[in-house]
Amino acid sequence: MITNGKKVLKGSGCEAVYTSCEFLLRYITGIGPENGCAIVDKTGTTLYTDMRYMEAAEKLLKGTDVTPVLYKKSEVLARLAGYEKVGVSFNQTPHVEYLTLQNAGVKMENIDQHLSEAMGVKNAWELDNIAKACQIAERAFLKLLPEIKEGMSESEIAALLEYEMRKLGAEGTSFATIVAFGAHAAVPHHETGAEKLKFGDEILIDFGCKVNGYCSDITRTFLFGDDHKHGEFKKAYQAVLTAHELVKEQARSGMTGVEVDAIARNFLNEQGYGKLFTHSLGHGIGLNIHEFPSVSPRGETPLQDGMVFSDEPGVYAAGEYGIRIEDTVTLKDGKVKSFMTETDRNLIIL
Amino acid sequence: MITNGKKVLKGSGCEAVYTSCEFLLRYITGIGPENGCAIVDKTGTTLYTDMRYMEAAEKLLKGTDVTPVLYKKSEVLARLAGYEKVGVSFNQTPHVEYLTLQNAGVKMENIDQHLSEAMGVKNAWELDNIAKACQIAERAFLKLLPEIKEGMSESEIAALLEYEMRKLGAEGTSFATIVAFGAHAAVPHHETGAEKLKFGDEILIDFGCKVNGYCSDITRTFLFGDDHKHGEFKKAYQAVLTAHELVKEQARSGMTGVEVDAIARNFLNEQGYGKLFTHSLGHGIGLNIHEFPSVSPRGETPLQDGMVFSDEPGVYAAGEYGIRIEDTVTLKDGKVKSFMTETDRNLIIL
Repeated sequence: MITNGKKVLKGSGCEAVYTSCEFLLRYITGIGPENGCAIVDKTGTTLYTDMRYMEAAEKLLKGTDVTPVLYKKSEVLARLAGYEKVGVSFNQTPHVEYLTLQNAGVKMENIDQHLSEAMGVKNAWELDNIAKACQIAERAFLKLLPEIKEGMSESEIAALLEYEMRKLGAEGTSFATIVAFGAHAAVPHHETGAEKLKFGDEILIDFGCKVNGYCSDITRTFLFGDDHKHGEFKKAYQAVLTAHELVKEQARSGMTGVEVDAIARNFLNEQGYGKLFTHSLGHGIGLNIHEFPSVSPRGETPLQDGMVFSDEPGVYAAGEYGIRIEDTVTLKDGKVKSFMTETDRNLIIL
Repeated sequence: MITNGKKVLKGSGCEAVYTSCEFLLRYITGIGPENGCAIVDKTGTTLYTDMRYMEAAEKLLKGTDVTPVLYKKSEVLARLAGYEKVGVSFNQTPHVEYLTLQNAGVKMENIDQHLSEAMGVKNAWELDNIAKACQIAERAFLKLLPEIKEGMSESEIAALLEYEMRKLGAEGTSFATIVAFGAHAAVPHHETGAEKLKFGDEILIDFGCKVNGYCSDITRTFLFGDDHKHGEFKKAYQAVLTAHELVKEQARSGMTGVEVDAIARNFLNEQGYGKLFTHSLGHGIGLNIHEFPSVSPRGETPLQDGMVFSDEPGVYAAGEYGIRIEDTVTLKDGKVKSFMTETDRNLIIL
């Protein structure tokens, strides 16, 4: 485990950093107890938690720079009030907690931008967790494919896929699994339901799982038998696939999110699908399924080695079909490296 | 669907109520889009959401007092600035959002206590969702029991149970499923892991699922075969079971959480288990797995008809065994009514 307390303190411009937000706790200390908070200062990181989590915390944090301590509100407030300036996430601090801290005399500064940027570049342990979460997602998908039968509902397929991920060691899903049959796939955020699978349907599955809190995100679109009515679909599929692969070939560290998004967007524009590519190419992935950086026409930040994001171009023809092909990828030695190595991106026909 | 906008506005003491918090949106409008906010005033409820959720929102909200509208930040802020006083949850408003509202001239008042109390008493639609979530949890448990085999890990059993709940129509779990073998059960918040099941092990499973956002919560403790080394365990089991049943028999609307907690606590004290009952008897259950009211030595609020909470006495002997028997229950016509009707509370020996 590599903890991030030092990284967060460095560049915060503050004497100490404080959080009680679950995913920030996980980021800073490596573990995310339901109740707790952390203070980082130059002496190291203190994780305040309650009796129920103490034993586990002591075991997991052995050898790190994080010391678990029993939480006492008055002690935490008094300690915080002693610092010149405490860095806090205004995004992740409920207003009621802000007032409590303020009333205790804590001098706070908003470090949201610094936190986003720090979290955007992953360390080796984080990359390893994401790689595991991606491998589990792919392997679960491969176990799912032969089990798909006519008459199954979208929800049944989602349930089976989630079960396979869980059996392979996932803690849970990284977001609500999307399974969309036929024209449902044209709705990028389709709500998985009771629709039954028919021969010739296309199937779009967007899913992911968590390992040590870190997410994977993957989408595959395929056909359940070929009824030879999928001419337009197949043409669009090839365009989306090429857009997806072009990003992997051409994106480089140092390019902005705008530039990387444009690799896919320009190609789909040229092919006449521009208006049907209705969302961003990608988003950062880490402890949150959507985080910094944005890989979109609004993503002005240059991408760097160690950042993790989705490469997910899509084409959506309302009432007809929807196609999305998505990998979770990172930048390494200046180039794109996908975490997905076991599943096919070429069109699968079951 | 019964929406709660009017109920929230009434008694808030404010001209309007505003939220962008997901579970409060769900409470007020009946649906919980990922991105959005709601304003309630005397004219009804407006749900502001983005294009992706618009179609689904229009369909689901037909016939309710909720109008879905495309979200525009400037419009929402301008509308809010026009009210004399806007009720807001300071607990569920990030400080950064509070600042945005304040800068736009919105005059806010904290209505957290009012919201907790309103949400504490469930309407018929909410009770129905909780009943469904409880039924799914029980049926999944009954499907699980014959599948439990020697050598299975805690995680495998959790995965299988979650799969059964999902197949029965659950949206997902209401919290991370706890499966604890043997002495692991002595840790009330044991982290489900790789431990393998052996003949004679006790098994504690604490789990639940969601239906339309509403949670169920249930714990069962049982034996995987009887190795005749469970004398102390069986004695304690009977004590916990009696405590659990006494609450169901004796708790009445109008009693405080303290009084209801004391029914179980006094009995376990008399039986010599007082020091081993290390947590509260129960907590409110609704859109959150832990919410108002508290049924504990600190729960001063009188319980009312329509409140939903857990009845979960437990006895934990560190390094030896742990027992918890939990139902999700409500108060109806002054008395306790359990949502759990299909599973046994008597000791099961597989």
